[in-house]
Amino acid sequence: MKKATQQQTKTHNTRLITKTIYDAGPISRAEIARLTHLTRTTVSDLVAELMEDGLVEEIGYGPSEGGKPPTLLSLVEDSRHLIGMDLANSQFRAAVVNLRGRIQHCLVRPVDDLDGQAALDLVYELADELVASTEGSRLLGIGIGTPGLMDARRGVVRRAVNLDWQDLPLGDLLEARYNLPIYIANDSQAAALAEYTFGASKDGSNLVVLKVGRGVGAGIVLGGQLHYGDGFGAGEIGHVTVVEDGQACRCGNRGCLETVTSSQFMIRRAQAIAQSDPHSSLHRFALAPEKITMETLLAAFEAGDPALGAVIDEVGHYLGVAAANLVGALNVRRIVIAGSVARFGPALLEPIVREMACRSLQTLAEETRVEISDLGPDIVILGAAALLLSHELGLS
Amino acid sequence: MKKATQQQTKTHNTRLITKTIYDAGPISRAEIARLTHLTRTTVSDLVAELMEDGLVEEIGYGPSEGGKPPTLLSLVEDSRHLIGMDLANSQFRAAVVNLRGRIQHCLVRPVDDLDGQAALDLVYELADELVASTEGSRLLGIGIGTPGLMDARRGVVRRAVNLDWQDLPLGDLLEARYNLPIYIANDSQAAALAEYTFGASKDGSNLVVLKVGRGVGAGIVLGGQLHYGDGFGAGEIGHVTVVEDGQACRCGNRGCLETVTSSQFMIRRAQAIAQSDPHSSLHRFALAPEKITMETLLAAFEAGDPALGAVIDEVGHYLGVAAANLVGALNVRRIVIAGSVARFGPALLEPIVREMACRSLQTLAEETRVEISDLGPDIVILGAAALLLSHELGLS
Repeated sequence: MKKATQQQTKTHNTRLITKTIYDAGPISRAEIARLTHLTRTTVSDLVAELMEDGLVEEIGYGPSEGGKPPTLLSLVEDSRHLIGMDLANSQFRAAVVNLRGRIQHCLVRPVDDLDGQAALDLVYELADELVASTEGSRLLGIGIGTPGLMDARRGVVRRAVNLDWQDLPLGDLLEARYNLPIYIANDSQAAALAEYTFGASKDGSNLVVLKVGRGVGAGIVLGGQLHYGDGFGAGEIGHVTVVEDGQACRCGNRGCLETVTSSQFMIRRAQAIAQSDPHSSLHRFALAPEKITMETLLAAFEAGDPALGAVIDEVGHYLGVAAANLVGALNVRRIVIAGSVARFGPALLEPIVREMACRSLQTLAEETRVEISDLGPDIVILGAAALLLSHELGLS
Repeated sequence: MKKATQQQTKTHNTRLITKTIYDAGPISRAEIARLTHLTRTTVSDLVAELMEDGLVEEIGYGPSEGGKPPTLLSLVEDSRHLIGMDLANSQFRAAVVNLRGRIQHCLVRPVDDLDGQAALDLVYELADELVASTEGSRLLGIGIGTPGLMDARRGVVRRAVNLDWQDLPLGDLLEARYNLPIYIANDSQAAALAEYTFGASKDGSNLVVLKVGRGVGAGIVLGGQLHYGDGFGAGEIGHVTVVEDGQACRCGNRGCLETVTSSQFMIRRAQAIAQSDPHSSLHRFALAPEKITMETLLAAFEAGDPALGAVIDEVGHYLGVAAANLVGALNVRRIVIAGSVARFGPALLEPIVREMACRSLQTLAEETRVEISDLGPDIVILGAAALLLSHELGLS
């Protein structure tokens, strides 16, 4: 708890009004006053400042409720821009995003063997180009989502194995270079914030995103806030054991969730199928087992390959184990599956829901909705942008 | 977000000062002003009100810092009383507690075969006696911790299997009878709040209590607040599967954590040992296998029975599985074991820590401290009291 000063109260109320227009607009000043319990005078004064700042505009008139029709206010979604970056293991993606999460300009670069300084240089290259592209518009800052452990408060990448970064003060480096606010989160955490801010469903303030791609992790939003954990490692469920004496994992333990649910696991399983079965439909979509990609798997799955169905079922089984753990611990009613593995859709959801139901308290499992994210491959970019929206404007 | 009115600001600041005196007292007005960033005048005015209300008193002088020595303020810990109740499966415990969690008067009644209205009558009987015993002192209300699913907001017991309560509006019933504020939480959730408020360690605002007795559940405090979950079922990890195709559980699923870690599980295991081994030390402490209790187990364990060591190790193993799940999901750095099973102390902690380390990300596990609660059998009573402290005074 902190004491409330006049300036804090004003900032608080300005954010409250901005958020109300963002969430409920187009909206009249009277309606804002009603929703926020602020006086009409306060609303009018602060709206005037927001309009002067270009963040809000009058866009027309609402239906009259007896008197003259009320003027409707709306957020100017292109009045500010945000840069979101997804420093994933296989490629870096970066984009300029507007206040509604619409992507204006997106860059994708393979990372391949880049690491250390070379990987950092690629971050600079992408940011340079995007910052230059936004010239003339107001840039709120740069948000970054990256696999591995972050210290979100200090903007330090504690450890990103694939990029060979250890205790890299990425936040400070970028802030010094661009003189802009920089926010960094783990990619799964960013994905959860994206889902909360820009996702299809708006009900509830708690949700978990299970991001399943090359890496596997969860992002947890509780009470509308990202839960980072004491060491910013909340959601690192990809490295929790789900198979007794299972396969060795890159983390040093055995049988981690990641070893039996990641895209790499699915590709390896598919390769084994292709090698052992000369009639596998996978041969129609890949020249050789080692050429199999997630695209091949999707094509073969859509062609109805039953062997692939079994692989998806296995992955779903273990994601259901993870979902049951989350339901038991957190009792969140919404679990969203994202990442490349989510592209298998309902076929993946079915085993997840089935396992969740028989591995956690029935009442709680029944009340939990599991769904596929509709934010697609840009989810981490959008989450990185949502970090900025949340910190800089109090939106999200 | 809500707008801040003058009255809200005053309430906020009063609570802030009370909390500062509670946490940091004895303390001078100047020091309160420094810690809270409130002006000295505001502090003096609000302290005067708190003193008039009997909640705060001047208790002497601190060391001079040049001028005249500052008057020190302290909370009057007996200025208010709280009633805490633990409606456990085997017995109801209820007590009058002061503001520091000191138990003044405690009642314990066996529940045995009571259920439905008879169980409710026992709650009334205990509360009647305790309310009467506090006559003349100011009672803040009644807090209740009980196994099963609660709707903490509405004070409704959604389901308490052993008491045969379903959708019982316990909060409303007690409020009507006593005209006092009533707060209800699940027993594990209450235990977590007790540990947070009255426990040995004061560092950090996140912790998990694993309460392991007849029932098994977790209570989760995040950011200093109890996390209830969307359906108030957060922490119901006792009914998450940890053994594939394990033993049937009363919840309808198989292999739940509770089936391999509860006190009943330990007693059944000990009974099997006693039945199969005529030389078991258990025979020294119980007349017959069916007479074995947790007390017998503790006595045999203290006498060094190796078979019992193996049972404790097994229980610890599965609690370690649960701990790894919690570390992965939440990255809390403090996990506290409470409940009757916690009485096995270090022998139980060792396998928990071992399993946690090899079943979750090493960096996170290493940073997580697992410890035994020192609040003993009163932990739920204290947690129920802490619910009141938190809601009524903003303490905790």
